[in-house]
Amino acid sequence: MRTTGYVAHAARTELVPFEFERRELRAHDVALEVLYSGVCHSDIHQVREEWGPSLFPMVPGHEIIGVVSAVGSQVSKFRVGERIGVGVFVDSCRRCEHCLAGLEQFCDEGMTPTYNGYERDGVTLTLGGYSRHFVVDENYAVRVPESLDPAGAAPLLCAGITLYSPLRHWAAGPGSRVAIIGLGGLGHMGVQFAHALGAETTVFSHSAAKAGDAAALGADHFVDTSDPATLRSHAARYDLIINATSADIDLNPYLKLLAVDGTLVIVGISGIPVSVKQQHLLVGRRSLAGSQIGGVAELQEMIDFCAHHDITAQVEVIDARDINHAWDRTVASDVKYRFVIDGSTL
Amino acid sequence: MRTTGYVAHAARTELVPFEFERRELRAHDVALEVLYSGVCHSDIHQVREEWGPSLFPMVPGHEIIGVVSAVGSQVSKFRVGERIGVGVFVDSCRRCEHCLAGLEQFCDEGMTPTYNGYERDGVTLTLGGYSRHFVVDENYAVRVPESLDPAGAAPLLCAGITLYSPLRHWAAGPGSRVAIIGLGGLGHMGVQFAHALGAETTVFSHSAAKAGDAAALGADHFVDTSDPATLRSHAARYDLIINATSADIDLNPYLKLLAVDGTLVIVGISGIPVSVKQQHLLVGRRSLAGSQIGGVAELQEMIDFCAHHDITAQVEVIDARDINHAWDRTVASDVKYRFVIDGSTL
Repeated sequence: MRTTGYVAHAARTELVPFEFERRELRAHDVALEVLYSGVCHSDIHQVREEWGPSLFPMVPGHEIIGVVSAVGSQVSKFRVGERIGVGVFVDSCRRCEHCLAGLEQFCDEGMTPTYNGYERDGVTLTLGGYSRHFVVDENYAVRVPESLDPAGAAPLLCAGITLYSPLRHWAAGPGSRVAIIGLGGLGHMGVQFAHALGAETTVFSHSAAKAGDAAALGADHFVDTSDPATLRSHAARYDLIINATSADIDLNPYLKLLAVDGTLVIVGISGIPVSVKQQHLLVGRRSLAGSQIGGVAELQEMIDFCAHHDITAQVEVIDARDINHAWDRTVASDVKYRFVIDGSTL
Repeated sequence: MRTTGYVAHAARTELVPFEFERRELRAHDVALEVLYSGVCHSDIHQVREEWGPSLFPMVPGHEIIGVVSAVGSQVSKFRVGERIGVGVFVDSCRRCEHCLAGLEQFCDEGMTPTYNGYERDGVTLTLGGYSRHFVVDENYAVRVPESLDPAGAAPLLCAGITLYSPLRHWAAGPGSRVAIIGLGGLGHMGVQFAHALGAETTVFSHSAAKAGDAAALGADHFVDTSDPATLRSHAARYDLIINATSADIDLNPYLKLLAVDGTLVIVGISGIPVSVKQQHLLVGRRSLAGSQIGGVAELQEMIDFCAHHDITAQVEVIDARDINHAWDRTVASDVKYRFVIDGSTL
């Protein structure tokens, strides 16, 4: 299938229009017409090779909302005309204990990334969601209810699940105290989820101007971290803290805010390792943990949760030809809170 | 009550004989005649002020096994002639949620350390177990069955509980894979516990000569870490790894050995913070956690577990007058595996 999109032909180049082939439908494939495609900071990291060498040509994009336009001969999960979503991976080994447990993101053989990776054949490049059409195995897509605004739903597929999964895994809910560090693309999803899950929800931010947004998103408390003394008065209080910033912040002051058996979760990788003073872990039996997106079943659970609680990302919809400018603004944190490309312009 | 012991009169001085008063028995106090008093590396750290300023005169010692010699008017837990043990703390606030939950080590107001601290009155120095007699509130002592060798039981009160508590908290048992880094005073307890709990138990050590000891203590596997390539072949295998070394080792290669949802636990504080590469936590949703001794109820549980499984520390019993030499040998890791002072020489 012939399609169009935006591509980086080499590392650190601008994105330009691109015409290319999608594979013919296999028995379990569905084709979709892309409605909206989210812009994730990791798109930029990978084109700019900030996480190591990348594969080119690269069509980025792993927050895809589309309408099924055709189905393979054996497809049973979706019908033509249904709205579906595709996230960070499009395949996995399907046999290991993690795949069988619905934790495809931890597949023993490695998940197949939606772009900047190879299909299971080991030779075919995957090309992502910055494109007019997409083809995916039905087992790696999720149903997206019509009640959800499709533009605001696109970032759920990466930003959303990145926060939803740790909140669920570490049991955020009634009676628990959750704090989110940073109110950006990730953080503004975390606040909505933590609140909807019933947790007492706090936002830590060094931008006092974000207090109003935090409250509107459901935060019970807002803590301005620009004054370190403020943090000290919150010691030993939180069951779960999620660092949703992309900055290299010192996590030690935040570890001290954890209650006994509390966990601080990181969801991003920066260039500088985390430095942890041992006493902040020993005192209170605290943990520093990592979390990475979620599996397909959890992705569907999150989408259904969002439909039930009317949760979407706050987005700025752009025309595909403005993508390079949007990337610059993403790097500058100049977006509330995620860019989403209008699929009809791709 | 007049008693004798060994004291450091000031920081970084040698220990010398000392004669001093123990308090008269309060209603819930028991007096004990010390049978054996364990030598813990933390005794040395504190006299040498390696963890910050200390309080002097300091009588170290928080691994105490003794026989009850007198009881206060309201004591109901112990009788004269019973063998009991005292560990790292001798009091706590008794009111906070952690004290009420049996996690006195995490008391909101701070536990009262057995030495190098103040009683709850805030002015009376606590003096530890390197002494002929000891006085303790019955609620902060545990029963020690006669079937346990009392010399080998002394190190259970700190070294033992330091490993037992995280093994229990992170559910070491049949079907789980546990690894202990380092086969010293702490590690040799961890191996015995992990094995007795039913976990598949591995020792990581850079001393190949310790393989025989590891097997004798119950380890199923021994991994010589002097060759880094050996570690790589164990990737993503362990549910729980406990760092039982006192050295500043790089934990990143060990984080990669954790299975999905695995935890690496640290139980000691060194001068250098831990440096953690984020990807080792994100991939596999792994945790780096801390653990600090255990509460009174868990201490009793461990002692009973040891009696049931015939577990004690391997010790070298010394005369009190040899304590300074024993400390030098402890610093040089020249002991298999803990020194214990014969109480009759104190």
